[in-house]
Amino acid sequence: MGPGDNALETDRKTAFELGKRIAEQGWILLSGGRNKGVMDAINRGAKSADGLTVGILPAKDNSNTSEFVDIPIITGMGSARNPINILSSSVVIVCGMGPGTASEAALALKEKKHLILLTENQAGKDFFNSLDKDHVHIANSPQDAIVIAKKLVE
Amino acid sequence: MGPGDNALETDRKTAFELGKRIAEQGWILLSGGRNKGVMDAINRGAKSADGLTVGILPAKDNSNTSEFVDIPIITGMGSARNPINILSSSVVIVCGMGPGTASEAALALKEKKHLILLTENQAGKDFFNSLDKDHVHIANSPQDAIVIAKKLVE
Amino acid sequence: MGPGDNALETDRKTAFELGKRIAEQGWILLSGGRNKGVMDAINRGAKSADGLTVGILPAKDNSNTSEFVDIPIITGMGSARNPINILSSSVVIVCGMGPGTASEAALALKEKKHLILLTENQAGKDFFNSLDKDHVHIANSPQDAIVIAKKLVE
Amino acid sequence: MGPGDNALETDRKTAFELGKRIAEQGWILLSGGRNKGVMDAINRGAKSADGLTVGILPAKDNSNTSEFVDIPIITGMGSARNPINILSSSVVIVCGMGPGTASEAALALKEKKHLILLTENQAGKDFFNSLDKDHVHIANSPQDAIVIAKKLVE
Repeated sequence: MGPGDNALETDRKTAFELGKRIAEQGWILLSGGRNKGVMDAINRGAKSADGLTVGILPAKDNSNTSEFVDIPIITGMGSARNPINILSSSVVIVCGMGPGTASEAALALKEKKHLILLTENQAGKDFFNSLDKDHVHIANSPQDAIVIAKKLVE
Repeated sequence: MGPGDNALETDRKTAFELGKRIAEQGWILLSGGRNKGVMDAINRGAKSADGLTVGILPAKDNSNTSEFVDIPIITGMGSARNPINILSSSVVIVCGMGPGTASEAALALKEKKHLILLTENQAGKDFFNSLDKDHVHIANSPQDAIVIAKKLVE
Repeated sequence: MGPGDNALETDRKTAFELGKRIAEQGWILLSGGRNKGVMDAINRGAKSADGLTVGILPAKDNSNTSEFVDIPIITGMGSARNPINILSSSVVIVCGMGPGTASEAALALKEKKHLILLTENQAGKDFFNSLDKDHVHIANSPQDAIVIAKKLVE
Repeated sequence: MGPGDNALETDRKTAFELGKRIAEQGWILLSGGRNKGVMDAINRGAKSADGLTVGILPAKDNSNTSEFVDIPIITGMGSARNPINILSSSVVIVCGMGPGTASEAALALKEKKHLILLTENQAGKDFFNSLDKDHVHIANSPQDAIVIAKKLVE
């Protein structure tokens, strides 16, 4: 999970690398599926390593879908699709930070899913840790996020 | 799209055959994903021909997911997931009939999607035809449904 | 429940009368809330008799809300709001017919809610009766619909 | 917006007082509607001053609805109802803090709604301020929250 419109350049680079490594693990990448920011970059990364990519889109058509999404799920329900992202994921990795991303991180904790934070937003790390430190994990790099995720799904 | 709990034996047979032929076309099968009735049978059919299957589940966990669904999308929103099934499909094929299935058939017409009816429910054929005859197509067999769908997606 | 854009003049007249009578019973009117067709007319009718009106809107803002809705619930989820209309109603009355309305009538039966059909669409009456005749009731006028609804909620 | 199951006693007291003052302004109270924690307390407070209360419920029936909700909107969609709470509110006031509440606060900022934080969770104040300080307002008491809200809606 990560921001679309307001993603930083550094978040997009991290997301590309993370997507690549997710695909190399043989995992399916599930994301918000848009053709912007972290969402576009992580799907591009996963396809660079021949991964399978699923996008849960907020719009009611394909006009904003990343071209690197293999299976677009068109919800037409805006942010009401955020819980689907969480419920359908084995592990939730947040890359970057923004209001939409924060709502997904919070929902992950609400549903008692493990949440890996790969972000430079220190206030976010402090806050989500204060909500449920047992389910929050801090990653310092894409490699690190994969190592943590592997332990969680085993 | 088709009924879960109250599917007829004949609908399940038709659904298995339809799923097999969808997979043989190289198409991705998207269904409601439950482990019951038409939903279970069509996924089983698709997997018998090595197809890729996506299920849009109403529950908030995997407890009622068909074992023949490769990619379960867990919505936790009951029938509010029905529009996702419609919006995410290139062509909607209805196999059998019931209240939930009828709501999906109606939504297909609401969204101006093509709707192929593969059902013995004559009242349903008459009704959906009365709503929008330009988007309703009657199929008499799984083969027939595939022929119609091929023309629509070309 | 009833059509917006393609409502017939006769459906709008019936809807106004029905809204007025719902308000006269002291019941809260819950509808799809849009400023079109049956939805607008039934809210106008209810306000003409000082009723309280709730609208469950598909859009993500108030731009298409009927001015006769007291309490607009803004869902931003298109047709995924249809199940909310059904689950929140004690009795579902359908006035007119169209694809969106048909999906709501079908969902009412899916949820085992009583469904009163006040429509000239004979194919619709036949079809919904074939799905679940125990929960389908045919009304010939707004007065008739109120008499049936009163018996059902008592 | 506020927590259900894990609300603090102090949050419930604040919520009761806030609900009472919302009703005294003649405003409609919209909340998550459950019979627990902040949700139950704020509705009780509003009814103590003869307010009108609307609840947007996550469940698919009325079994967990606060008895102080006048108009229960039954969504059956769990946390996918959170965006409805935000989109339907003129101003969002958060009382207490928890994962579900945090997701609503984040969605408020995503939708560019004004967000008033009435909570002792300092990490939350810091985090939401870092996301969008123009839309975040800190209140120190229910009275204070009302004063801020009045300015925002005028």
